[in-house]
Formats: sequence, structure tokens, C-alpha cells
Amino acid sequence: MTSPPHPPPLDEFGLIARYLAPLAVHPGADGLRDDVAVLALADLAGDLVVNTDAVVAGVHFLTHEQPAAIAERALRVNLSDLAAKGAKPLGYQLTLALNPAQDEAWIAEFAGGLRSNQDAFGWSLLGGDTVRTPGPLTISVTAFGTLSGKGCLRRGGAQVDDDVWVSGWIGDGALGLALAQGIGPALDPVQAAAAESKFRLPLPRVTLGIALAEAGIATASADVSDGLIADLGHIASASRLGMEIDAALVPLSDAGRAAVAQDGEWLDRLLSGGDDYEVVFTAPASARPDIVAIGLRTNTPVHRIGAMTASADGVRVRYPDGSLRCLSRTGYRHF
Amino acid sequence: MTSPPHPPPLDEFGLIARYLAPLAVHPGADGLRDDVAVLALADLAGDLVVNTDAVVAGVHFLTHEQPAAIAERALRVNLSDLAAKGAKPLGYQLTLALNPAQDEAWIAEFAGGLRSNQDAFGWSLLGGDTVRTPGPLTISVTAFGTLSGKGCLRRGGAQVDDDVWVSGWIGDGALGLALAQGIGPALDPVQAAAAESKFRLPLPRVTLGIALAEAGIATASADVSDGLIADLGHIASASRLGMEIDAALVPLSDAGRAAVAQDGEWLDRLLSGGDDYEVVFTAPASARPDIVAIGLRTNTPVHRIGAMTASADGVRVRYPDGSLRCLSRTGYRHF
Repeated sequence: MTSPPHPPPLDEFGLIARYLAPLAVHPGADGLRDDVAVLALADLAGDLVVNTDAVVAGVHFLTHEQPAAIAERALRVNLSDLAAKGAKPLGYQLTLALNPAQDEAWIAEFAGGLRSNQDAFGWSLLGGDTVRTPGPLTISVTAFGTLSGKGCLRRGGAQVDDDVWVSGWIGDGALGLALAQGIGPALDPVQAAAAESKFRLPLPRVTLGIALAEAGIATASADVSDGLIADLGHIASASRLGMEIDAALVPLSDAGRAAVAQDGEWLDRLLSGGDDYEVVFTAPASARPDIVAIGLRTNTPVHRIGAMTASADGVRVRYPDGSLRCLSRTGYRHF
Repeated sequence: MTSPPHPPPLDEFGLIARYLAPLAVHPGADGLRDDVAVLALADLAGDLVVNTDAVVAGVHFLTHEQPAAIAERALRVNLSDLAAKGAKPLGYQLTLALNPAQDEAWIAEFAGGLRSNQDAFGWSLLGGDTVRTPGPLTISVTAFGTLSGKGCLRRGGAQVDDDVWVSGWIGDGALGLALAQGIGPALDPVQAAAAESKFRLPLPRVTLGIALAEAGIATASADVSDGLIADLGHIASASRLGMEIDAALVPLSDAGRAAVAQDGEWLDRLLSGGDDYEVVFTAPASARPDIVAIGLRTNTPVHRIGAMTASADGVRVRYPDGSLRCLSRTGYRHF
């Protein structure tokens, strides 16, 4: 009857009970004591928005990232989709396909990242599944949000002559990834760190999206995940219109501006790179004062970068040299 | 201006548009034209049950399975959870992490499997995400069902002296897997094929679950995915009670009975093996006539195999030789 020198590793049920069940504070999650979550209609504040985004280690994030940062990012890329639709975060289903490298200590840190995200965005774990894989760590999140006000901001409602707006700064996703991989331009260390941090920990524009939906002034909206030009293209094609944007109006961070100053080719990379997780939306010119006010109230930079056009020929970009180029396919990625 | 001899491979958007969008017939899916699905409260027949189950090639299914069968099985294991909760299938979010081996032809066949499942169970694709992985094919499904009648059948409501019931036949999941791997017992080919088919294509007990929930007579319910003994253990522990079942009353298929006749050790393997996707539930003795009637009406075999006990000491099994063994931990798996 001697005790083993180390406690045996926890099995799936033990890991879930210790690290994930405390995160499942929504009544419908029932503390993960059942296989399912129940969302009672009487408790829902509005129609339900459902989004799924999956990430694979080495494909969508760098394999050496800290577990807490991986958790934060997996949730934030989903929150970004909810934000672009004007939905208030409610909860999420989490699928973890864990590689043997993800031991109990890893899971503890990962759960810490989930916890800090939940505290920041006011939502919680509803349920999910945890499996083992011989392949890379894979995380799939299905996120739920509730709509209020005028309903869901879809991609396809833009009208001719509507303004095109974007939140925050564009290009730090692509620039930050290049810097994190050691293949970026030589930048001031503070600027470089800011861009890398924006790539690692995108800032979903949840309060902006909710405010736009409640005000009912955005005609179309999408988040910038595939790249600014590609996601603008989704709005243009769903609205059966074209779009012309002015490259000089696209907001770049200090790091982005420094990169372009060093090498002009960076401009297209910033405009077409992915992972910015900003919101692009359209609205009539009459809404400009309201949009500026919403930006101030939600503490979110908003910039007007162009307008919708009648010709359904994709996204045209006007460059500082006066040239106009059609980039309708830029940014499309093969997965 | 010569045409290439073969069309270029479709990118993510092309594959989704061609093979998945036609499956997204629910109005809230908007034909997958947006990143999100919207479930309008006014359209929901009752509270929403949400379940996620993920499968990994080589871990949860054999790598050489046909694409359509992989699709069917990934959906059916989720439908089984909805069934055990008494929920009517509504729709599902699908995450596909595709290996390079999954080419366009594979995806076309996979989509065919989704289609036949949708036709059989009356639900449809709502949305999801498709990514590439260097690891094994991984599929995560988040399934939605709606509750009617008396609400969700939870795990934790069993009462002392309640009967314990099980649908269908137990053990064909484990036996079918062994046979598919070529390590099963030597059986009559017809019996062996039936067990293997049950492993490949489990039959979720959707109509039984809905009927039990509508009648409001089951006090607790779960599906048999981890193994009969383990899933009975979940009901017992969630209900803070014990359970005694009679091994001789557990329904076995012809193949299962033949396996046990050849080698008595198969009995424990059938009782504790996983992947049966039957429903186990508890109900007071007064409900016996109603349960038998529901079984007949839904064309689902139902068998009474034991009863709940006051002592919270797991699941005891009475064997044909009269011995009583406590198997409360049997069937727990390390993922």
C-alpha cells in the first residue's frame, strides 16, 4: 500500500472536470455534467448567430506559442466574426484535438487563456469534445452570439455610393506574422513588438459591432480575416456591386507605415494579408456623424477608405501614384 | 491563350460553393454566403440542444473508410447524443481539417454522405470551417436539436428503484471494430457483416428519444458511446445513486452471442466496449407499458436490464454464474 511517487496522469474526464468544467458557468452548460448544452429560448436576448473557426498548429498559428495565447487567439478569431455581425458574445463549444505534446500542464495554461478571454468578453464555455490526435494540435470553436437592435449585419446589403469603413489598423496581421517568423523588415523594436502583438492577440471589435447593429446604420459588414482586399471583395460580390478604395486612406500602424517606407512592395502585402480581425462595413454618407460618434463612444478607431460602385467588377484600389488596379482576386487563399 | 489540359484545383471558396453550399438549405444558413448562420428565435420549435463530437482518422474511424461512410458516421455519432436528450435534429456546424489526401473527388463523395444523412434525418448544414492540416483528417460536428414536450433528458435524474432500459443491441460497436480490424472472432459471415455494418454505420435512436421526451417518462438518459458500463456509470454518478444490471438481460446481436459462445471473455468486452450509439435510460416501473408501446411505435427494440440502487457505488453487474462485480471504472478511456 505505498503511494506512487507521482499521481497518475488524468484521463479525459479528469482533465475536463479539473480544467474545463470551472469555465462552464452558463446555466445551460450544466457544469459539463452532461454531453450537451441547452440554450433555453426564454433566456436568449435575441436571434442566435453561430460561427465556427478552426485553427491548426503550424498552419494558423506558430507551434511555439504559449498555450494561453493559443487559447486567446482561437476564441478571438471567432469573436471577430460575431463582432462583424453585431452579435453579443454568449458562449462557445470547444473541440480540442490534442497531440501527445499537450500534457496536463499545457492544458492548465490553455484553460487559463480561456478564462482570461471569458473575463474580458463576458461569455463562457458551453461544451465541446476533447480527443487525441497524432497530428498537430487542432482547435475548433463554434461561437454563439445574440442579436439585438436591427438584426444581423450581413455581407450583401451594400448600396451604390455607400461609404466603406474599416476599424483599427490594417496589415499588422501579415506584418506581425512576418516579424514573428523572423522574415519581416528591420523596424524600430517598439513598433515591431506592437505589430507582432497585434498578430498574436488580435482585438475583436465587439463593442463597435454591437453599436453599429443597434444603430441600424451599417448596410453590410464582414471581419478582415482573409485580408482586407479579399474581405472587401466578399462584401462587393455578395452585394452584387463594385468597390473603389483609396490606398492612402487605409489606416496603417506605425509599424506598417515604416515597412512601406522601407519597401513600397509592403503596401500590397498589408492590404491583402490576412489575420487583421478588424471590421469592414458600409453605410450611407448620411450616417457619417453617427459612425464617428460610435467610434468615439466605443473607443474604436474608424476610417472611411472608399465607396461602393455600380459596376460589379470587384475591388479597385487607387494607389498614391494615381494608378487604379483591380485586385478582386488578391488575398484568396488555398485554405 | 491555350487552355490548360486540366482545370485548376478549386480553392476553399470554390469547394465550399460547389459541394457544401447546396447542403445548406436552412434559411439561417443563407446558402453559406456569409461567415455565420442565424437561428431566428421565432423559427425555433423549442429550447436548443447543442452537442459537439469530433473524430480523427485512425483514432475514431479506420483510415481506409469510404468518404461517404466517414461523413455519415461523423453526423450519426452527433445525432445519437441529440437522440439521448430527446431533441429533434435541426442542423449542424461542420469543421473539416483536410489532409492533402482529401482531394476534390474525396470531398464530392464526402458531401454525398452528408446529403444522404440529411435526407434520412431531416436536418441540414448550417455553416462551419474548412482548413488544411498536415495531420490526419479531423472532423468536428456541432449539432443542434430542438426540444419539445417535457424538455431535455439529462443524465442526473434517475430515482432509486427506477428501471434501467437500453435500446437495440449492445456490443456490436466493439465487436464490429475488432472484425473490421481483422482481430475479431471467427463468425458466420452474415452475422459478422451485420456487426461490422453496425460499427461503421451506427443507427441513432432519434425517434425513440423524441418519443421518450414527449411522453415525459424517462428520468435520465444518455447515449452509449464510451461503452455500456461507462455510460451507465455516468447516469449513476450524475444521479448520485448506484445501479445493478443483469448481464443476461443485456441484449446482444446474433454476432455478439456467437462471440460470447466461442469465448466467454467477449461478454465483458461487449459490455464495456464503445461505439454502440444506443440509448440507455431510466424510468419508474409504472412506465413499463408506455415504454414498450413507444418501442413498438418507433420500431426500436427496448430491453429492461436492471434497476437503480440507493448506494452510490457505481455499476454492479450480475453475471450468469451468479457473481456480482463492480465495474464502475470499466470503459473509461484515455481519450
